[in-house]
Amino acid sequence: MADTHTTSRTRIGIVGAGPAGLMLSHLLAVAGIDSVAIDLRSREEIEHTHRAGILEQGSVDLLLDSGVSDRVHRDGYRHDGIELAFGGGGHRIDFQGLVGASTQLYPQTDVFIDLADARERDGGDVRFGVTDVSVGDLTTDSPVMRFTDADGSAHEIRCDFLVGADGSRSLCRHQVPDSECTQYFREYPFAWFGILTEAPPSAPELIYNHSPHGFALISQRTETLQRMYFQCDPTENVDEWSDDRIWEQLQRRLNANGYTLKEGPITSKTVLPFRSFVQEPMHYGHLVLAGDAAHTVPPTGAKGLNLALADVRVLAEELERAVRNKDATPLATYTQRAVARVWKAQHFSYWMTTMLHTLPDATPFDVRRQEGELASVTGSVHGSTYLAECYTGWPGER
Amino acid sequence: MADTHTTSRTRIGIVGAGPAGLMLSHLLAVAGIDSVAIDLRSREEIEHTHRAGILEQGSVDLLLDSGVSDRVHRDGYRHDGIELAFGGGGHRIDFQGLVGASTQLYPQTDVFIDLADARERDGGDVRFGVTDVSVGDLTTDSPVMRFTDADGSAHEIRCDFLVGADGSRSLCRHQVPDSECTQYFREYPFAWFGILTEAPPSAPELIYNHSPHGFALISQRTETLQRMYFQCDPTENVDEWSDDRIWEQLQRRLNANGYTLKEGPITSKTVLPFRSFVQEPMHYGHLVLAGDAAHTVPPTGAKGLNLALADVRVLAEELERAVRNKDATPLATYTQRAVARVWKAQHFSYWMTTMLHTLPDATPFDVRRQEGELASVTGSVHGSTYLAECYTGWPGER
Repeated sequence: MADTHTTSRTRIGIVGAGPAGLMLSHLLAVAGIDSVAIDLRSREEIEHTHRAGILEQGSVDLLLDSGVSDRVHRDGYRHDGIELAFGGGGHRIDFQGLVGASTQLYPQTDVFIDLADARERDGGDVRFGVTDVSVGDLTTDSPVMRFTDADGSAHEIRCDFLVGADGSRSLCRHQVPDSECTQYFREYPFAWFGILTEAPPSAPELIYNHSPHGFALISQRTETLQRMYFQCDPTENVDEWSDDRIWEQLQRRLNANGYTLKEGPITSKTVLPFRSFVQEPMHYGHLVLAGDAAHTVPPTGAKGLNLALADVRVLAEELERAVRNKDATPLATYTQRAVARVWKAQHFSYWMTTMLHTLPDATPFDVRRQEGELASVTGSVHGSTYLAECYTGWPGER
Repeated sequence: MADTHTTSRTRIGIVGAGPAGLMLSHLLAVAGIDSVAIDLRSREEIEHTHRAGILEQGSVDLLLDSGVSDRVHRDGYRHDGIELAFGGGGHRIDFQGLVGASTQLYPQTDVFIDLADARERDGGDVRFGVTDVSVGDLTTDSPVMRFTDADGSAHEIRCDFLVGADGSRSLCRHQVPDSECTQYFREYPFAWFGILTEAPPSAPELIYNHSPHGFALISQRTETLQRMYFQCDPTENVDEWSDDRIWEQLQRRLNANGYTLKEGPITSKTVLPFRSFVQEPMHYGHLVLAGDAAHTVPPTGAKGLNLALADVRVLAEELERAVRNKDATPLATYTQRAVARVWKAQHFSYWMTTMLHTLPDATPFDVRRQEGELASVTGSVHGSTYLAECYTGWPGER
């Protein structure tokens, strides 16, 4: 095989050209470090992957400050708070008032488009739609990625360091021997039923709605398209859910807290699994993992994309150091810095999930305690401020 | 039976003359309302019941402001914070700096002595060591308590309202028909092994010590007597624990976070069960429940005695209204006001318990998430402030 490959060299090889891989490629370019990013998916395919998009203040700043996007402010919607609804009413968590920060509603697909445009504008080497990807020589100082380009030509690219930013079903992650890492899992006994509906917004901000009938999240997308979710069984079949049945469920849960939803045709129905995962360390030899390749969180805390961007912000710094000194030590520093944030985010996602969902095995005591927690957090400026800080991101940390 | 009783009348009959019953009796006396309090135990017996004693700021204020005790400040120890120890070190929660409040180390037995002295000083009618206690006519406007005095004479006391402040094995609670209340339970899969040791203090403030070997709490009593606890199996037999074995366990857990305990002879060894309980509503006809009779919490949050005092502070107000208007409606208001605090305290106790203990069924993910939570709370001014507020009591509430 090897002799049929075109062989070349770059500083950093990046497997995965989603938001994490492209953001890293961009930040490295800003630092004057060459990289090549590859992805099995076509650019169009990634653009059409719908994902939630709540950006932390730090994520917005990263996009702005690094020159990726000014569209995030122009086309996004700034949210200065969220509603926690329970016990018959809404309780606003005022992000601006409590921690002087906001989140930005800006879908992941738009983050991707901005990054892909920026890489193209700056002449970055990004290859979409590649096939036959493999990586090797990870414990040497010249790891390799091999792939067939979209035009059918075979490539072998050697690099100083290889980055696995290839998502939750990461190929790179599977190259790390079991003896060299620990994998942490958590399953949840429920999932989210997510819809897109052609309707005007039902609320100006996200509503995290706890009710005796189960959890629901009311989110927005544009003035005419809305994203909503409701807690369901992980084995739920979307084909068994008519629009009427979905609206009946959503209205029932929201009505319990005094809200009424604006209905419209439902254009997308999906069941989102709920699981937590972390692989540690996030480096192995000259390979590092970033974003979903290293960790996934349940969606309740809106942390997935933000964690990925936080990873690569740290990773770009450490790779710069590693390249400059021809030394892999900064990869361990990356793990150390990134993992601290990962476990805070895992805890926050777990906290939001268990505080707000109907837990199938909950006793009547557990239900009352959960209501006591919601009352305690929303009734306390300090509790609300702590939640606001976690939700908008931990600013003290890089 | 009835004709052999000496019959008398009072406004408020109080079953139970522990801290809750005596504090209520005292507050009612201040408001000019007569009461009679009875207890199966002798005064000496209650004085020798060792219980932890961390008083919230509000509890200290209640003792001071109502004229019960100035000894609480003189003989107690003010604690301006606690240590949360984990991951190799201690992390102080600075109550004064964060919420401008403190707790007071002042054992429950001293609270009881002060209250018993104050009732005696003020001529309160308190009968210790009674037998054959029964209560009746609870749904009438003239409920009754019957008992045999310590001197052998039988009494029947009719009252406007009857209060069950008779602890976790409450007789009064059992008079409420199942159809008229809901009982909420939670068991925990561990207990605390509690010791008293004749040694100097190992630390100036409480240490809540999380470690891979299990939880431990280092507390104080006096300059020469210390109270310590470590997480154990609920079926643990104290006879199987030599002093050496106990110290080995405690040192191992504390050493993990850099502490070394000062050892001494162990003068008391007990296993404290961990359970949560709430009965709602806290009233039935002309009967009301207060303190442990209505709810118990695990000891981690130090809320038991404080909740009991918070109950009777509210109850005294509502009973005054009920007596004045000859109307039982304020009893429902008492339930409503007290229960809100009870569930906050249940949540806080659950939170501290689950955040700090080694949970027998924890997966490796759960352990790392728990460490993420401890890092998140102690690493955030807002998280620490929220914890400090809960620990020192919720000041906005009466």
